[in-house]
Amino acid sequence: MALNPADDRLAALLPEGVLRPLEPRHLDEPRGYHAGQGGLLAAPRSVEEVAAVVRACTAARVGIVPRGGGTGLVAGSVMPLGPLPLVLSLERMAGIRGAWPEEDVLIADSGATLSQVQDAARAVGRQFPLSLASQGTAQLGGILSTNAGGTAVLRWGNARALCLGVEAVLPDGSVLRDLRRLRKDNTGYAISDLLVGAEGTLGIITAASLRLAPLPQAVATAMLAVPDPAAALRLLALVQGEMAGCVTAFELISGQGLAFLSETLPEIRQPLPGAPWSVLLELSLPRGCDPAAMAEALLVRALEQGLASDAILAQSGAQAGEFWSLREHLPVANRRIGAISSHDISLPLSEIPRFIADAGAMLAAMGDMRVNCFGHLGDGNLHYNVFPAPGRDRAEYAALRPRVQEAVHEMVVARGGSFSAEHGVGRLKAADLARWGDPARLAAMRAIKAALDPLGIMNPGAVLALPEPGGGPISGG
Amino acid sequence: MALNPADDRLAALLPEGVLRPLEPRHLDEPRGYHAGQGGLLAAPRSVEEVAAVVRACTAARVGIVPRGGGTGLVAGSVMPLGPLPLVLSLERMAGIRGAWPEEDVLIADSGATLSQVQDAARAVGRQFPLSLASQGTAQLGGILSTNAGGTAVLRWGNARALCLGVEAVLPDGSVLRDLRRLRKDNTGYAISDLLVGAEGTLGIITAASLRLAPLPQAVATAMLAVPDPAAALRLLALVQGEMAGCVTAFELISGQGLAFLSETLPEIRQPLPGAPWSVLLELSLPRGCDPAAMAEALLVRALEQGLASDAILAQSGAQAGEFWSLREHLPVANRRIGAISSHDISLPLSEIPRFIADAGAMLAAMGDMRVNCFGHLGDGNLHYNVFPAPGRDRAEYAALRPRVQEAVHEMVVARGGSFSAEHGVGRLKAADLARWGDPARLAAMRAIKAALDPLGIMNPGAVLALPEPGGGPISGG
Repeated sequence: MALNPADDRLAALLPEGVLRPLEPRHLDEPRGYHAGQGGLLAAPRSVEEVAAVVRACTAARVGIVPRGGGTGLVAGSVMPLGPLPLVLSLERMAGIRGAWPEEDVLIADSGATLSQVQDAARAVGRQFPLSLASQGTAQLGGILSTNAGGTAVLRWGNARALCLGVEAVLPDGSVLRDLRRLRKDNTGYAISDLLVGAEGTLGIITAASLRLAPLPQAVATAMLAVPDPAAALRLLALVQGEMAGCVTAFELISGQGLAFLSETLPEIRQPLPGAPWSVLLELSLPRGCDPAAMAEALLVRALEQGLASDAILAQSGAQAGEFWSLREHLPVANRRIGAISSHDISLPLSEIPRFIADAGAMLAAMGDMRVNCFGHLGDGNLHYNVFPAPGRDRAEYAALRPRVQEAVHEMVVARGGSFSAEHGVGRLKAADLARWGDPARLAAMRAIKAALDPLGIMNPGAVLALPEPGGGPISGG
Repeated sequence: MALNPADDRLAALLPEGVLRPLEPRHLDEPRGYHAGQGGLLAAPRSVEEVAAVVRACTAARVGIVPRGGGTGLVAGSVMPLGPLPLVLSLERMAGIRGAWPEEDVLIADSGATLSQVQDAARAVGRQFPLSLASQGTAQLGGILSTNAGGTAVLRWGNARALCLGVEAVLPDGSVLRDLRRLRKDNTGYAISDLLVGAEGTLGIITAASLRLAPLPQAVATAMLAVPDPAAALRLLALVQGEMAGCVTAFELISGQGLAFLSETLPEIRQPLPGAPWSVLLELSLPRGCDPAAMAEALLVRALEQGLASDAILAQSGAQAGEFWSLREHLPVANRRIGAISSHDISLPLSEIPRFIADAGAMLAAMGDMRVNCFGHLGDGNLHYNVFPAPGRDRAEYAALRPRVQEAVHEMVVARGGSFSAEHGVGRLKAADLARWGDPARLAAMRAIKAALDPLGIMNPGAVLALPEPGGGPISGG
């Protein structure tokens, strides 16, 4: 790949030993829709080297695309267009800087994978309660920069809620040192919170101070067959009301999702096959109570109130693992079927049943398609994915895809929802943000971007689209 | 009071009926250390009128001091120096805009008191889990602008964690409309989170979308006598480990605090009189367990492990109320004794025992003083208040006071702590922030302030000190 004309000058400005060969793995994205590009790959070994790289890129006017595990789904870490950027990987900054179990705090470098962080927490008798399918590959820096969610948000919040503060290199090359081990600190603006979720456009997070949590004393895991999404929401209210603080997961699974599993992964055991809708419920209960008796009584009440037609309480850790395996294989089955369009949306909880009905009717009027709607119902976050009719190929729907995307997002936004609940904006949804974002909020974002990164060096075109052509919005997925 | 020379011009620009007589209550602060000043008082009735006031002040180059309930302790809503500002009160915007109990969401105007918000939540069968002594007066706008804490942060987080999004008037007069009823929304920078805690320096929060929580099924409240702060911390780890998710309060009370209560409020019942240190523990437990049995077993383990020397479990709601009344009267007793210096500090949890010992020794070497150290130990947040020796008056310590303040803050910062855990910076601690804040973080704050409020209209001199004289830092308290 040809270097950016500025790259020779840039290379001379970089700290020795920072450059590494740029490999295909630094330029790909999970769905394969977009190919990134890059001139140089820098893999610094310290925050000082990250700062030197940022200063060098500023001097050479070369954009920086920060790269974590590359598991993001919105092209935030691949830049297909525009002047070749430097790709900045923190793969050589992957240490655990310290753990304070008595404080429920751990400080880790951004290049550590989520699994490494989880393991380090467990090694001191605690948990880092953020969990998602790509945790073996996803790196902490990316987790924070995208404010990742996952299956434990209901109880523990998203990445921002689990981050006490960060160390980061700002676009001017200065180092923000905010690795607080504090639960409370009201000394000025929430700068760390601003960097979390900024997708690398305001600076490079190099390390973070993270909240840990105690390991649960007892866990009860259940699958329930529910008649419809409205019943699932009433079930959620029942469970939260009775078990407040102890509900650690409430995942919705559609009958279509089970059908996709049967079709593509028949080896995955389905405890409630054929259920039109299911809920995977997890309770983490305190010491001194009888978790099985409490969970059984709760399931009985749900059945009595007509919120569920069937329910199975896991009788062992292995059976609970089976329930979770089913949940975690839904995206695998989706990939095998091949989506026309995927939507990571959130809605006010009470809007969800009507949205599912109305969006289904709308899509039925547009063409012959199947919908697999599943996800973190407790957070109002649905993965609303649209698939070809049986026997047809997604390529046949190429012309329909942008219309489907726009129609779904429009319906979501009209009902007070979000077109990106947990995946972020990246480059894939930068045009959506420009179109649907609140104008005053967008203006504030642009003012902050211009104030902190006046040259536009940091992850150009992510979140805030550049004028086309160049790093402007891209379409796909 | 003389008007600002610009006020005549300003008054002509304001919407009709917005001005009200400026009363002493708009210019005071709870401790009476500082007298605010103001030319005009504007009390708008809608977000559009707030925007018109902001635009008028911009045109007339008059500063705006936003005013909530006036219960803040850091002179964030009083401006004793500089050109007379307009005081902006949201007292006429105090409605509940809507409640969605099935979503655990409530939207309220900024002028509503915290008590009104709590009542509105209870009226729909939920709680707004933020609680502090001044809740009958403190207004939501101030609660959010100072990112207030209180006694439930351990379980529910501070104000920022309980805010899903805000409506706000930005310094350019535009209206940010971000009243999301969403748990998850990753569409760009955390602008609402930035406005929360900005103390009115980046805009005026006019309404907020708030998280509600279910009412607890069963509450167990206990007082424990603990030998020292280190034992209190081990007790915290025990309790959190066994009751994760169910610990809703863990408050530390010092023997000195009990002595002050005996001296000034002998009618307050003390369940464990003479304890060198006490802990007020509250558990909120799920349905289906035996809260008394669980709490008793927990207390027995604490006693067996030597973490407590005595423990009393409240046998009724009335007795639990007595325990809380003791906790809530500690600041009342403090005011009657009269502090030399008060410190709202936080520390990494494991630093706390050594800090308490070292700070006590340091103060003993400085003079004859008493320390009442109490507060939200579960959050690492201590109210570290210094008092005259028995029989002496605080006036005698006037010369010592700034040295005490500096020495305490210096020791806190050196140990990774914060000189303002939950009260904010205001004008009282603006010099502390300038001195002890991380330089890159301060530079980012100043850049954001300049980008959003280039004329410096919004709450001048709060958080970020102005060049003196004028709205620069003030001392006191």
